[in-house]
Amino acid sequence: MTASIDLYFSCGSTYTYLTVMRLRQAEAEHGVHFQLHPFYLGILFQEMNRRPFLEEPQKTAYMWRDIARRAAWRGLTPTLPAPYPAVKAVQGNQIAWLALREPWGRDYLEASYRAWCERGRLPGEPDNIAESFAAVGQNPDTVLTDAALKTAHEAVVQQTDAARKLGIFGSPTFVVGQELFWGDDRLEDAVRWAKTPQ
Amino acid sequence: MTASIDLYFSCGSTYTYLTVMRLRQAEAEHGVHFQLHPFYLGILFQEMNRRPFLEEPQKTAYMWRDIARRAAWRGLTPTLPAPYPAVKAVQGNQIAWLALREPWGRDYLEASYRAWCERGRLPGEPDNIAESFAAVGQNPDTVLTDAALKTAHEAVVQQTDAARKLGIFGSPTFVVGQELFWGDDRLEDAVRWAKTPQ
Repeated sequence: MTASIDLYFSCGSTYTYLTVMRLRQAEAEHGVHFQLHPFYLGILFQEMNRRPFLEEPQKTAYMWRDIARRAAWRGLTPTLPAPYPAVKAVQGNQIAWLALREPWGRDYLEASYRAWCERGRLPGEPDNIAESFAAVGQNPDTVLTDAALKTAHEAVVQQTDAARKLGIFGSPTFVVGQELFWGDDRLEDAVRWAKTPQ
Repeated sequence: MTASIDLYFSCGSTYTYLTVMRLRQAEAEHGVHFQLHPFYLGILFQEMNRRPFLEEPQKTAYMWRDIARRAAWRGLTPTLPAPYPAVKAVQGNQIAWLALREPWGRDYLEASYRAWCERGRLPGEPDNIAESFAAVGQNPDTVLTDAALKTAHEAVVQQTDAARKLGIFGSPTFVVGQELFWGDDRLEDAVRWAKTPQ
């Protein structure tokens, strides 16, 4: 049976670029399935009084360099540092939720991350939306109606509640049962856990 | 030629347990040599106005669980959570510096980390010192003279200055040239970088 792994993410997370771009390969290689849950990481950050990366310049500089090296090793071609922070991550997560209910959802997510990390268009911003919807042959005006975005908001709030209950504090976080695996670099640990009889 | 990798660490770092316990194996497996540099991470944390792990309960809980899982996969048997934080990390780093000038230095470091993470004795505390020196057949009274500790302090301050200049903000950090690799989980990246012609 294919093991299922929940993946909680915010489209405003930089490191999640590395994860989104290897989901297909990881599923094929490990025989697992990722169930994607966009959530409002910003809300949890506020609740935890967490400081954003930006207030720690050494760590921010390292983050970009770390992502750049790992991306290059995986054959990706980002242009880093990308614009940051993603001030419209809320909208981006709503759109991601709507997209992920469609067959073209993951393609959209990849396109949106490419638009951000390769061409400097922040998630949730009009230029990113236009480019990413064009990439999957969809019309944003048809998909992103007020009613749809309202539904998406309520769903993302629910997923944020679920993330809070699980103790999630960052993106991406892989979840197997109650077990958390934080960071793109823990994907393999999550897979190992999911495939090990407990 | 054996590639050399600088390893900056503070003996008060929990994740460094995972690194210290696999240095020998990593050197043998990858054909590299680690040059160890204890430094005062606490001073850099103060300068950066960094918050300790303890103020973020979700992250702290995750840290212990993450270390426990990875340690178990490597055949280690820690008892976690271990006491935290290591309030005598300054002394611990001075002792580590002195030990690392001796042939038994790495054995001492392993013993000290085992004493902390397996038996609950914080680094720099008398019970850790007694146990770790006994483990390597040395007498702490002979090694830890006031003059020696003063010399060690000055050396660790110098290594802290070097760490600051490199942009280091955590432990363990592997350094290859000017390139930083933060975290035990970046050991393999550092090795890859060290062995790749730039």
